[in-house]
Amino acid sequence: MDIKKLAVEKHQEWRGKIEIVSRCQVTNGDELSVAYTPGVAQPCLEIEKNPERSFELTRRSNLVAVISDGTAVLGLGDIGPEAAMPVMEGKAVLLKEFGGVDAVPLCLNSKDVDELVRTIEMLAPSFGGINLEDISAPRCFEVEKRLKEKLSIPVFHDDQHGTAIVVSAALINALKLTDKRFEDVTIVINGAGAAGIAIAKHLLSFGAGNVILCDRGGIVYDGAPYINEAQQKMTSVTNRKNQTGTLADAMKGADIFIGVSRPDMVTADMIKSMARQPIVFAMANPTPEIMPDAAKKAGAYIVGTGRSDFPNQVNNVLAFPGIFKGALEAGATDITEGMKRAASLAIASVLCDDEIAADCVLPNPFDKRVALQVAEAVKQEAIREGVIREALKNA
Amino acid sequence: MDIKKLAVEKHQEWRGKIEIVSRCQVTNGDELSVAYTPGVAQPCLEIEKNPERSFELTRRSNLVAVISDGTAVLGLGDIGPEAAMPVMEGKAVLLKEFGGVDAVPLCLNSKDVDELVRTIEMLAPSFGGINLEDISAPRCFEVEKRLKEKLSIPVFHDDQHGTAIVVSAALINALKLTDKRFEDVTIVINGAGAAGIAIAKHLLSFGAGNVILCDRGGIVYDGAPYINEAQQKMTSVTNRKNQTGTLADAMKGADIFIGVSRPDMVTADMIKSMARQPIVFAMANPTPEIMPDAAKKAGAYIVGTGRSDFPNQVNNVLAFPGIFKGALEAGATDITEGMKRAASLAIASVLCDDEIAADCVLPNPFDKRVALQVAEAVKQEAIREGVIREALKNA
Repeated sequence: MDIKKLAVEKHQEWRGKIEIVSRCQVTNGDELSVAYTPGVAQPCLEIEKNPERSFELTRRSNLVAVISDGTAVLGLGDIGPEAAMPVMEGKAVLLKEFGGVDAVPLCLNSKDVDELVRTIEMLAPSFGGINLEDISAPRCFEVEKRLKEKLSIPVFHDDQHGTAIVVSAALINALKLTDKRFEDVTIVINGAGAAGIAIAKHLLSFGAGNVILCDRGGIVYDGAPYINEAQQKMTSVTNRKNQTGTLADAMKGADIFIGVSRPDMVTADMIKSMARQPIVFAMANPTPEIMPDAAKKAGAYIVGTGRSDFPNQVNNVLAFPGIFKGALEAGATDITEGMKRAASLAIASVLCDDEIAADCVLPNPFDKRVALQVAEAVKQEAIREGVIREALKNA
Repeated sequence: MDIKKLAVEKHQEWRGKIEIVSRCQVTNGDELSVAYTPGVAQPCLEIEKNPERSFELTRRSNLVAVISDGTAVLGLGDIGPEAAMPVMEGKAVLLKEFGGVDAVPLCLNSKDVDELVRTIEMLAPSFGGINLEDISAPRCFEVEKRLKEKLSIPVFHDDQHGTAIVVSAALINALKLTDKRFEDVTIVINGAGAAGIAIAKHLLSFGAGNVILCDRGGIVYDGAPYINEAQQKMTSVTNRKNQTGTLADAMKGADIFIGVSRPDMVTADMIKSMARQPIVFAMANPTPEIMPDAAKKAGAYIVGTGRSDFPNQVNNVLAFPGIFKGALEAGATDITEGMKRAASLAIASVLCDDEIAADCVLPNPFDKRVALQVAEAVKQEAIREGVIREALKNA
């Protein structure tokens, strides 16, 4: 059956992909008086005395809100809060099934940055972490930045950082295979939106030598007339030689291509113009910037996409369940660059050296080791950096 | 063991009384591509075309938000959003266990009416109903009123209407036993806050003859210097004879006393001054306005409290799970006075005539018939009144 039809039928059958269940019994008066009145008053008072105890006496220590305004849902654009919900429910399912984390999907009926920030701030006492999802750029930058400043629980915009973490993990293993070092390579990223910029920043934090961002106008360079504020800011840390020109110009001699843009943006000739053993991650969905077979034929050594039907699938599910699991277990108050780097390294290291191959630079999304190892690495890094709740620091 | 200590220990053991679980499997790529990308795009698009379908393709049709600002939690007052959470989680447990309704507890970090209204409005697309909880008066009136106007999903402030519905159910059966009619009785309500006023209104909608509200200053009468705006409004429909004086004055010759006030407000002499076969619902928690044995000794014929260790427990759990279950099943857009009356009648009628007795005017909270019968009555009334979503009207 056609997957579109099947998906609608299954969603109709499920009537929601998540549900809320009780962790306690209330089958008689004694049980009711402990879980509810009058007994419940005492845990309430304990938390009033010390709000830190909300992490012990409620679900908060394992509970994340998956929050969207429905403005940039998958590749569908601004489809509104009701229509975004199937994706957010799906995300909640993945957080639970892969990371054991409880997640409440919330779609908000506003596109105003101030309102979104204020609302999420008001919701924060109910949660241990906030996963922002499918909020359009540039608003997503502002929303995330302000929330990270205001809140003392982890805030993570998956569309930016999830892809950055996973594609970086893939590159760590790909560079091993090609005997190259981050310091020496030139990386071209096509698509300088939320994901592209986050990927650039994350790769730079790994010491990537020369990262060149491209967008619809061509190479993003200092003062380019076609770039926006966020892109202009990136020119101080990217495009070392201040190159100008088209995507094709950027790719000449580059080691790595990363696409978070649109189908068919990359030709065989562009691949042929790259340095030895080209690494190509063409993640436009559902049709990549260049199809894997065409890329290989033109000489690409390692090819990845966002699709499950080709090797090297860059799937965010490799990252976010473990990241939240680890952050919550640590009692983290933030998700730092260090924690994101730890996640990339953990994903990469799930594969031992003799498992790594040109068509296997990332673990399988269903490999149960991934979330566990990511969680442990993220947790240890949070503890090492001391970005955990005060009460836990001397524990 | 002491219940306070036990409750803290159990809450610590549970680490949250609810959790979120998946209703679909994602154990391989095929399942993942239906529940999540790329398949999930299709239900999203269906909802974008017709937002009504969010009730079929997401959990919305069975999902309620239990929302508090933590300002009037149990008898504990303004303890803040974190500290309110154990109660809200408990409420979510009861909605699921008694009504089969999924509920997300949300405690908001604001006391500003405009902010609360706007935030809940922004959250509404994610839910099929809103249960307001433990919001202090008079703000709760304004929050509920404005949300009922703005939203096309049911909004219900349980502290007001839950108690009103259950105590009215108790009175329906109590009046049968005493051979009196609503039209003829004088009902004194002590405590003219959110609950007291809601009880007065609900009893008046059953045709109650003379309802007299009392508060700290005494009887609530037109122009009384000690009453607030909400109480002044009530003087046009209560206190028919425009009586003045104390609670003791009000109770002389009254048929029914309802207390939602403070411990030990009622003396044996006050009971003795009432009409034949006094009905006394003393619901201050944990210590009633008068203890049941003292009230009985002074001549009370039927006595109820809020406590589970005495007969005739007025417990909101008799009402809200069935009300939301029925409202959601009907696709209701509101919870009307008629639906609340239907709920009271349904609760009362769970007991057949020969089960009704002075120490049994309300069904047991664990009687499984209650939520089912309340739900059916509320659903039928919503359909009869036509307060259901447009798409369901011709179904």
